[in-house]
Amino acid sequence: MEAGAIYRAVVDLCLLLFAARLLGEAVSRFKVPEVLGILLAGIILGPFAFGGIVVAGKPLIEFNELIRIFAEMGAVMVLFVAGLEMSFAEFRAAGLPSLVVGSIGVIIPFFMGYGLFTLLGYGPEVSLLVGGFLTATSIAITVLTLGEMNKLKTSEARIIINAAVIDDVLALAVFTVIVSIITGGHAVEPLEALWIVINALVLWFILLVIGTFIIPRLIDRTVMWKAKGIVESMAVLVCFGTAVLSASIGLSPLVGAFAAGMAVAGSKAIQRVREFIDKLGLIFIPMFFVVMGSAVDPRAFLTGDFALFITIIGVAIISKLVGCGLPATYFLKDRQRGIRVGLGMISRGEMGLVIAGVGLTAGILTEEIYAAMIAVIAVTAILPPIFLRRSYSKANEK
Amino acid sequence: MEAGAIYRAVVDLCLLLFAARLLGEAVSRFKVPEVLGILLAGIILGPFAFGGIVVAGKPLIEFNELIRIFAEMGAVMVLFVAGLEMSFAEFRAAGLPSLVVGSIGVIIPFFMGYGLFTLLGYGPEVSLLVGGFLTATSIAITVLTLGEMNKLKTSEARIIINAAVIDDVLALAVFTVIVSIITGGHAVEPLEALWIVINALVLWFILLVIGTFIIPRLIDRTVMWKAKGIVESMAVLVCFGTAVLSASIGLSPLVGAFAAGMAVAGSKAIQRVREFIDKLGLIFIPMFFVVMGSAVDPRAFLTGDFALFITIIGVAIISKLVGCGLPATYFLKDRQRGIRVGLGMISRGEMGLVIAGVGLTAGILTEEIYAAMIAVIAVTAILPPIFLRRSYSKANEK
Repeated sequence: MEAGAIYRAVVDLCLLLFAARLLGEAVSRFKVPEVLGILLAGIILGPFAFGGIVVAGKPLIEFNELIRIFAEMGAVMVLFVAGLEMSFAEFRAAGLPSLVVGSIGVIIPFFMGYGLFTLLGYGPEVSLLVGGFLTATSIAITVLTLGEMNKLKTSEARIIINAAVIDDVLALAVFTVIVSIITGGHAVEPLEALWIVINALVLWFILLVIGTFIIPRLIDRTVMWKAKGIVESMAVLVCFGTAVLSASIGLSPLVGAFAAGMAVAGSKAIQRVREFIDKLGLIFIPMFFVVMGSAVDPRAFLTGDFALFITIIGVAIISKLVGCGLPATYFLKDRQRGIRVGLGMISRGEMGLVIAGVGLTAGILTEEIYAAMIAVIAVTAILPPIFLRRSYSKANEK
Repeated sequence: MEAGAIYRAVVDLCLLLFAARLLGEAVSRFKVPEVLGILLAGIILGPFAFGGIVVAGKPLIEFNELIRIFAEMGAVMVLFVAGLEMSFAEFRAAGLPSLVVGSIGVIIPFFMGYGLFTLLGYGPEVSLLVGGFLTATSIAITVLTLGEMNKLKTSEARIIINAAVIDDVLALAVFTVIVSIITGGHAVEPLEALWIVINALVLWFILLVIGTFIIPRLIDRTVMWKAKGIVESMAVLVCFGTAVLSASIGLSPLVGAFAAGMAVAGSKAIQRVREFIDKLGLIFIPMFFVVMGSAVDPRAFLTGDFALFITIIGVAIISKLVGCGLPATYFLKDRQRGIRVGLGMISRGEMGLVIAGVGLTAGILTEEIYAAMIAVIAVTAILPPIFLRRSYSKANEK
């Protein structure tokens, strides 16, 4: 790119960023998660809608190289931030009930999605992606809602939060395996699939253990140098370095970034890294969601397969209600509290988007399935607050 | 770029960033300006030195597309930040002595440089660039030194600081004109040159006035929206938007960014914008200096024309001593204080780098002249603290 093109690319980038922030904030006033507003900005300014309007021989907004690079970097940061939220030690300390709730809550949605789509006649790759898409919970909204109702200290809230940690890591494992299988690029025998699963999980675990051992020491060492911005530079270096390392051993760079985040979470400078990545993320992370949104043709919502949407959202809700709600009921010995755990885990979010994006980019998911997935994320994000408020107010009436 | 290439590019970027921060901090412990350490990082890791070592068929560090984009964005931010430091109101309130000191301190270095290099047989374009290179003072180090000696309230310090504001704007005007002439791409008649000068200055002034009128209102309006990151997004949008606008009317995008900065400085949210750009600049601005450094072949320092370096640095010191020192002596009616003003204005810095970079990129400056300019920036940056300390301690002895 020559200099002039760079500036124009940056202006397009800024316009998208501005729209993303604006719509993100606008929807959050109505208690709708910010990420949905940002997706909406991507849809509206995407090539299928206003961004595609041709002015003076050029589209209004060009989704150029620079924007794609920022989005790619944003995806890496989403996973890195997710990793930062949990250290290896927290992962081990989650406790048996959360371990069971989190695990079953990943296994059931995956197999329900995979099985149903195989039954419906879709190929194994599409079915895998749908299964993977359904696994990862996004509990940000639930935690916010519970906080507003002053219920964060209840036994069900504690299970939700700890189970979400397990859920995140397991969903990541599922993601790792799916990407490995898809990039293999050929039909997979059951035994071969098992081998890929074990191979990917072992590799990722080795990456995590080595990272957990080396990275906090590296970060804590740079803290001692007391140079301005040195810890921040090291954190970014570690994040993308592990992503590249991860790619070089055949895993997705994204799971490498997640492992790097988990490793950094064990450092003493975690607070400083978090603050910096929060600021940096203000620019890169929205670009990922905007680009995800821009891949949606809004007409697909109207002409799209409504049955498909109903199928996926049905599985999304039922599988988490059963997969998390049942074991939680067993541990809490209280059906109402158990159901609340299930309700709290319904939301899908960033991780689902990442999987949907990988599927679309690889040419496996059709426009229709992708649009349906985006719609599922949007709807499931809005449901838990409604359901949880109703459940608690019912309990109060008694 | 495909995803894998992006991650590798980001890792190269992070390595450079990390080295830049490290060397910047290392030299600043010895009271040497950080920017020199960052330039040094660029020289060391550049393609002419360690970065060019070929490992597995690839250079150790590739100065790829992404790095060039970040550097380009960094240059825009350098000028934007320079503009943020002064509002239009401050510019008008600088006072007569500072106006005269600043103006003569720009005119004399420019014509001394231009004249001498023309006499030495260089073409008009090279001479123009050398003249322009010599105009812009970088007073950060001087202000720091005066602050450490508790001399910021003296009459000479006040003249230095206010004259630097005038100096910055006039140097920018010179830069604007030089770029206009160079990009014209043909030999320029005296009358035509005058027309270009007037045209460029008028255009820039119109841009500044319109910006000063519109931009603060725009920013203050977005503040009212109270959305997270909205003011920050708007500031970046305004910065690059004005750069593009500036390029579209035939000026350098860099001077547009400067005007945008001056305009934003008139907004009520200036503090918030400054804080954000400071964080953002941590990543982009060092990349500009690193890339500037990477263009230097370290061998040019050894085999280079030492006479050339002596010539330029001689003019650099004498022209500011005379151009600023004489008028300051007249206004302060004190030779010693007048000389201190001259000494305080010797340093060249960011703006000189921008001009040198433009000259090198346009293929007008040779490797040798570019290397000599970098050396001049390095040496003049170190001189003012030494000279000023000596001048004040001498005065105390009396």
